[in-house]
This record gives sequence, C-alpha cells and structure tokens, in this order.
Amino acid sequence: MARYEIFVTYREGIFDPPGATAKGALKNLGYPVEEVRIGKYIQLQTEAGPDAVREMCEKLLANPVIEDFRIETAEEA
Amino acid sequence: MARYEIFVTYREGIFDPPGATAKGALKNLGYPVEEVRIGKYIQLQTEAGPDAVREMCEKLLANPVIEDFRIETAEEA
Repeated sequence: MARYEIFVTYREGIFDPPGATAKGALKNLGYPVEEVRIGKYIQLQTEAGPDAVREMCEKLLANPVIEDFRIETAEEA
Repeated sequence: MARYEIFVTYREGIFDPPGATAKGALKNLGYPVEEVRIGKYIQLQTEAGPDAVREMCEKLLANPVIEDFRIETAEEA
C-alpha cells in the first residue's frame, strides 16, 4: 500500500477565483497580501503504482485543461 | 517578500465529502483505492511574517472547527 500526495494548481495565467476571493478578503482585513493561489491537496492511499495514480489525476482528480498537478510518494507501507 | 505554502486538511474523524466522492468515482473506474482525502493547497505571497500568516489561516483560510492547517515557508525573495 502506498500513500501519495497530489498538489493540483491552476495553470499559469488561468484565473483562480477562490484565490482572488481570499486575496481580497485578506486585504480587507488589513493584511499586506500580494498573491493567493488556492489549489487542491489530495492524500491518496492505494495499491496502485505511480503510473495509475498519474492516470487517476488526468481522468478525475485534476482538470488538465486548466490545472497542473504534481505527485509525490509519501510512503510505502 | 516571503512565499508560504499552506496545507488545509479535514481534521481526523471529520467526514470529507469531496474525498469520499472521489474515492467512489475512482473505484467505479476500477482503481484499487483505499482512501482519498481532499484538502486545500494554498500558495501565499506576502510581506507578512509567520505569525500573521497563522492568523490569516485561523481567521479566513481554514475553518478551525473542522480543519487543521500546516504552514511551510517556501522561500524569501
């Protein structure tokens, strides 16, 4: 069984609505915020290998049209 | 200017609806998935220091009632 960590982020140049909303709200609270980007942090536990995990990202966990993803193997157990 | 990475996850024992949905969909696609947890991956660029970033998480970026967060300093620039 392996544990993977997957980081899904909007692609460079793609508008990030939750990030923009958070940035505006933090500025309204008085924080000197330059940029906020909000993506997904996915923890996956599976018997599948790295190639299958990449496939899961492409098919379901990320939207390759507007999102990039990065996979890290957290541990083998 | 510092860059922070913030990982927001549901607390242990709190039901994670997007994770449960993704798990079901991946199993339907035939992948041997044991567990999927979906949190937020926030990239923050700010003049503020670590204490202010922790405050931003507590006030706005995470919901401390149901979520945990972890802050990492990505770089000073």
